[in-house]
Amino acid sequence: MNRLWSALARELEPYVPGEQPRVAGLVKLNTNESPLPPSPRVAPAVAAACEDLRLYPDPDATELRRALAAYHCLAPEQTFVGNGSDEVLAHAFVALLKRDAPLLFPDVTYSFYPVWARLYGVDSAVAPLDAAMRVCVADYRRPAGAIVLANPNAPTGIALPRTEIAALLDDHPDIPVVVDEAYVDFGGETAVPLIASHPNLLIVRTMSKSRALAGLRVGYALGDAGLIEALRRVKDSFNSYPLGRPAQAGAIASLADETYFQASRARVIGWREGMADGLRALGFEVLPSAANFVFARHPERDGAALAAALRQRAVLVRHFRGPRVAPYLRISVGGEDDVARLLEAMAEIVGA
Amino acid sequence: MNRLWSALARELEPYVPGEQPRVAGLVKLNTNESPLPPSPRVAPAVAAACEDLRLYPDPDATELRRALAAYHCLAPEQTFVGNGSDEVLAHAFVALLKRDAPLLFPDVTYSFYPVWARLYGVDSAVAPLDAAMRVCVADYRRPAGAIVLANPNAPTGIALPRTEIAALLDDHPDIPVVVDEAYVDFGGETAVPLIASHPNLLIVRTMSKSRALAGLRVGYALGDAGLIEALRRVKDSFNSYPLGRPAQAGAIASLADETYFQASRARVIGWREGMADGLRALGFEVLPSAANFVFARHPERDGAALAAALRQRAVLVRHFRGPRVAPYLRISVGGEDDVARLLEAMAEIVGA
Repeated sequence: MNRLWSALARELEPYVPGEQPRVAGLVKLNTNESPLPPSPRVAPAVAAACEDLRLYPDPDATELRRALAAYHCLAPEQTFVGNGSDEVLAHAFVALLKRDAPLLFPDVTYSFYPVWARLYGVDSAVAPLDAAMRVCVADYRRPAGAIVLANPNAPTGIALPRTEIAALLDDHPDIPVVVDEAYVDFGGETAVPLIASHPNLLIVRTMSKSRALAGLRVGYALGDAGLIEALRRVKDSFNSYPLGRPAQAGAIASLADETYFQASRARVIGWREGMADGLRALGFEVLPSAANFVFARHPERDGAALAAALRQRAVLVRHFRGPRVAPYLRISVGGEDDVARLLEAMAEIVGA
Repeated sequence: MNRLWSALARELEPYVPGEQPRVAGLVKLNTNESPLPPSPRVAPAVAAACEDLRLYPDPDATELRRALAAYHCLAPEQTFVGNGSDEVLAHAFVALLKRDAPLLFPDVTYSFYPVWARLYGVDSAVAPLDAAMRVCVADYRRPAGAIVLANPNAPTGIALPRTEIAALLDDHPDIPVVVDEAYVDFGGETAVPLIASHPNLLIVRTMSKSRALAGLRVGYALGDAGLIEALRRVKDSFNSYPLGRPAQAGAIASLADETYFQASRARVIGWREGMADGLRALGFEVLPSAANFVFARHPERDGAALAAALRQRAVLVRHFRGPRVAPYLRISVGGEDDVARLLEAMAEIVGA
């Protein structure tokens, strides 16, 4: 704290990301990274982009937005890109979610939402998940300025079917509804087909998870051109050039390799099911996940103690504090070896 | 405009960057890019960073900040990095420049300052440049909440000596003073040696100009650890991972190649002087530049008309509207061929 800080800087409670230790031999299942590398087309595209590093990148990412539009059967004006989906979501808070009535989101969800709300002075209210940790659309049938939902939700991994998202949109035709589909490629139903009929729907995606590009920083949004234009106005009031040349080129290369993408996500889904089965065999309750992680608790063990015991065995998972989530561990899906090492360590700990 | 936009989104007046046309054969002197490529060490470092793209980058950019600290003879806690200096400056507006009294900056300066002020609701006031388009420190001797100056200033290119910056800091020990040194490597005197004695000084730098990395997006700030901590709090409330792996690796490689850096900036300075002499020979008044551009006007010609005539000859320069700047052209320093083509085209236009 310092007398030179703004009043807002004093009040902020920053988001705390999962740790990124530089330790070899660690089983790192704490930040939902992909166990597989990105498409082999990405590295050559990034290297080729170094040809022109002295020049600014295209501030509008025209070619990347065209590729995204083609991929999702939309128009380029229905796409927006940013420096990771966190930047895209932050801009959505400024451009769309700051309203006269409170922004609604679940009590258990991506813990960055309340941080952006505080940063931008967005009044917010939470709708609790039900006893099974599910989002219930009926709980959102109340006056609200805007809604943001992660689907699948994090850290639960539970997905809502598209019909439920459609019902939510029909309940709220006059307010912006942001659906954060960071994890949708691992088994969720995307809301993209609802864009045509719902000009209030903004979908946010990341290339960090299913496209294994966490190190490149590319996120995007899809929605009605009117909503996208609001994001563009905020972006152009903040940073004209959010995506460098390597990021734009790498993202385009990833989108062009559909065969690799489909095979990767299928493998991750397979590993997730094996990991969930293994945890259940050790006595864990595992929520039904449509993401690249599972949210699991042991009926007789403390979540924080389990995370600490795993850490002693060089296995890193994520544990969140808070009344409803503290019993659980959020465990990213690893490759075969990592899943085996996780299950071995857990078997030792719970004495199965 | 759209009923779903926030009130703020409706009010914004976004910054307009120089155009980035994809046309071959153009002499592009409109966005102050480097006429030289970056250090040859950058491309291999960026390519090597593709090894681990599936993993998030270090959110604290520890290695890059260590390299910056060593380069500038500071501690790592006195350094901050962001996705271009525009992001760093934007965070400084939120963390430091939003105060109870107005933020002061020159009437003619980087035109993104008023855009950030509007985005973040920062009350601001301008201090006019003198008749010779110079910043006069005496004009800042009045109550202010904070000050931001570009040194060298843009688009004039005129630099203040360090003694003047020291005088400004001594006048205002209790408010944050941000010095934007985007262009300092082309002949300005850096304020870095003043950091030790002035805990209210924040210096912002970019790797886009003198390090020829506009396409990579790396900016940074240097200052007292207390000021840096405020920037970190804002960054961690906005986007945990602003710099991807390629950007961090490329920036580190550039910093390690001091010989190349010194040779590059010397060549650009040499070309600038040749360009300024050539323009003066054609009757232009050229402000004394310590940047990689010149700001020049012809006593008998209209600035906008000159820019349009150059454009017809495939030479792109920047023209700004506004009462004091409209007579001028801002012309980025090009390599020998580009300078020759600019001067030829200009000779045709002004009939010299």
